[in-house]
Amino acid sequence: ETGSVALVGAGPGDPDLLTLKALRFLQSADVILYDDLVAPGVLALARREAEKISVGKRGYRPSCRQDQIVAMLIELASNGKRVVRLKGGDPMVFGRANEEISALRSAGVPVEIVPGVTAALGAAASLQVSLTERDKARRVQFITAHAHDGRLPDDFDWGALCDPHASSVVYMGVKMLGVLSERLLERGIDPATPALLVERATWAEERRIFGTIATLAAKVAAVDPAGPCVVLIGAAFAAYDGEAAPIDHGVKQAAL
Amino acid sequence: ETGSVALVGAGPGDPDLLTLKALRFLQSADVILYDDLVAPGVLALARREAEKISVGKRGYRPSCRQDQIVAMLIELASNGKRVVRLKGGDPMVFGRANEEISALRSAGVPVEIVPGVTAALGAAASLQVSLTERDKARRVQFITAHAHDGRLPDDFDWGALCDPHASSVVYMGVKMLGVLSERLLERGIDPATPALLVERATWAEERRIFGTIATLAAKVAAVDPAGPCVVLIGAAFAAYDGEAAPIDHGVKQAAL
Repeated sequence: ETGSVALVGAGPGDPDLLTLKALRFLQSADVILYDDLVAPGVLALARREAEKISVGKRGYRPSCRQDQIVAMLIELASNGKRVVRLKGGDPMVFGRANEEISALRSAGVPVEIVPGVTAALGAAASLQVSLTERDKARRVQFITAHAHDGRLPDDFDWGALCDPHASSVVYMGVKMLGVLSERLLERGIDPATPALLVERATWAEERRIFGTIATLAAKVAAVDPAGPCVVLIGAAFAAYDGEAAPIDHGVKQAAL
Repeated sequence: ETGSVALVGAGPGDPDLLTLKALRFLQSADVILYDDLVAPGVLALARREAEKISVGKRGYRPSCRQDQIVAMLIELASNGKRVVRLKGGDPMVFGRANEEISALRSAGVPVEIVPGVTAALGAAASLQVSLTERDKARRVQFITAHAHDGRLPDDFDWGALCDPHASSVVYMGVKMLGVLSERLLERGIDPATPALLVERATWAEERRIFGTIATLAAKVAAVDPAGPCVVLIGAAFAAYDGEAAPIDHGVKQAAL
């Protein structure tokens, strides 16, 4: 029997935000290779008999030994295993999927992709702020603030990031937030532009820190969040009305 | 008993790509107000006793009588109904959610947001191409090619859209694709930039048209797709290897 590999999006954290298809793959897997950023509650829904292997950090960080992961996927599938490569959020956003898909195809391994709710969408839902807004934010962009050497990429299109008519969501940007904010301010972004950090969006432990692009980095540094974070930057996020609540603690919306 | 309104993402079309949470809301709703772009297979999963009301086109089109929709949501919730406002893809991407949330809050109606897999993610999964790629596409942006007057917005940040290191996904852009492509070429985008149209991404009837930013619009005009479409533009999409297959018919990946 031929094995297979599915790249499966784990969603932003709340296990309830898995897709039906992702759940089915998790419940029929022989082996699951998962990122550190996947919420424990999601893994708990996987088939109990499945072997679960942590393969480290997700994305562009140096700790991610991509070649080893790919070799494992190919070897397991060649041995007839149904393999799930479980990625935080969606597999096609900052997940190095093209490299994995290309290598698996070259090795003759059947591949399927199961999309997921990416962290930006989870955070927007949790905060109850839209990523786009008629006239005000007709464009939304996702960036990662880590190059593969672990530093802030220097080839950003700064004009695109400072555009007052766009919303931006920065993935994996906590340690880079200070320098990223400085650069944006140097390049002319309005210092009053709303900016919001969401740690562990949609998890029970979700935390939010609200400010502007000029003030957020210092507030975040004081809290030093350790979980997966996204930073939302843009005029549309002025619609966030959580300021009345403690801004550095989880404020889950009341259940209906 | 107080009613409530949930803005629920229907996902890109395949009912299997609903989240567990969205399914639960659909199965406990009294009334469902749905967009035309919501796939019939998704609606079929809703509670049979729920009243289902079509409220027309999604997004920025003039056919969308936003004030009437908001008035209906408030009235139904005020009468104690559990209301689901079902939106194609994710409610926080091109869905006018901020207007609805703000009006509902002002009326004292409890609101919850259930995110969904937005069309760009569904299309990327279906095509097996990543929206981002290390070094090649560190930024991904979603735009809509309709202003509220139904024309191409003239305040786009063209530099951001022509950036060779970004991927772009255009929502609801089929009729605007010709003029959008022309403008991008005028502003200096590489004419060889890969461009892909996906109609009804993840539906059984999915169709794909592959070309470059210079050739796609004419190919699309010849086919004249009527279903919801996204257009993917960027160097990362060179990884799409469906050219060998008929490019203007659905080529669903084989099931695992």
